[in-house]
Amino acid sequence: MDIMGQTDIASFFTNPDDRFMEEALKEALKAHDLGEVPVGAVIVHEGRIIARAHNQVEMLNDATAHAEIIALTQASAALENWRLIDTTLYVTKEPCPMCAGAMVNARVSRLVYGVADTKYGAAGSVFDVADNPCLNHRIAVVGGVKEDRSRELLQSFFMKLRNKI
Amino acid sequence: MDIMGQTDIASFFTNPDDRFMEEALKEALKAHDLGEVPVGAVIVHEGRIIARAHNQVEMLNDATAHAEIIALTQASAALENWRLIDTTLYVTKEPCPMCAGAMVNARVSRLVYGVADTKYGAAGSVFDVADNPCLNHRIAVVGGVKEDRSRELLQSFFMKLRNKI
Repeated sequence: MDIMGQTDIASFFTNPDDRFMEEALKEALKAHDLGEVPVGAVIVHEGRIIARAHNQVEMLNDATAHAEIIALTQASAALENWRLIDTTLYVTKEPCPMCAGAMVNARVSRLVYGVADTKYGAAGSVFDVADNPCLNHRIAVVGGVKEDRSRELLQSFFMKLRNKI
Repeated sequence: MDIMGQTDIASFFTNPDDRFMEEALKEALKAHDLGEVPVGAVIVHEGRIIARAHNQVEMLNDATAHAEIIALTQASAALENWRLIDTTLYVTKEPCPMCAGAMVNARVSRLVYGVADTKYGAAGSVFDVADNPCLNHRIAVVGGVKEDRSRELLQSFFMKLRNKI
């Protein structure tokens, strides 16, 4: 299976969300190749990537080491501010409650994700932490960008895992 | 105001939850004295504290640096395992969605908190992330332990902050 596929050259130049999600997918592929659940994230500020990370739970032996959490810490260092105003976080899978909560805490402006997570998703699927009128900050959410490729990576990973057991 | 108060010697010997919450309160006091929102946490495994941390958002300039997240990372290092089976996390304030989500991800067994957080709490107040039948792990939750002292620390901090502005 050609997981990364061919970059759509037309969309590369015309659609920033597709372009940045390609970068998040590259991070997810790194996680896949390292035996981590393949999720990747990048954070963009003023059209520039200021953070890129992939899931490192197994390598760091730390359940908090999701791609989004690592990227948020990187972005805060880059901007020298824990308030990540005017940033967009791209992640290949809908964030879990931990990661969506972290984005709200960090005042991320916009979240773009690939495939929805019907088991743990906290940007609308199971909880709505990301854009909730009860909280002091709401994030604009767009889902389904490069959804098929994001899903294929996860399916490929879990298929391999099942074959090992 | 005597924020830390006198340790109740009788309860010190009789009630582990009170005793460990005293340790979390010591961490919260450190945060208070450093100008951080005063929240402290400890994690206990087999009757022993394996992690202790306080909120460090301002010092580390990182919105993910809540007491609980730092303590979870420490505990994973101590046990050399991201699955924190048979652990209890004590925290002076009800955790936010990020922290409650992180505890679920880390398979923390039990959560004991001090004061409820009616604005952001994710162990029952606004969301129920900690003990939710939709998720793959549920945490046994006890609230209200050393509640008054936990609240007093927060009130003292925000009163000082308002007087500064």
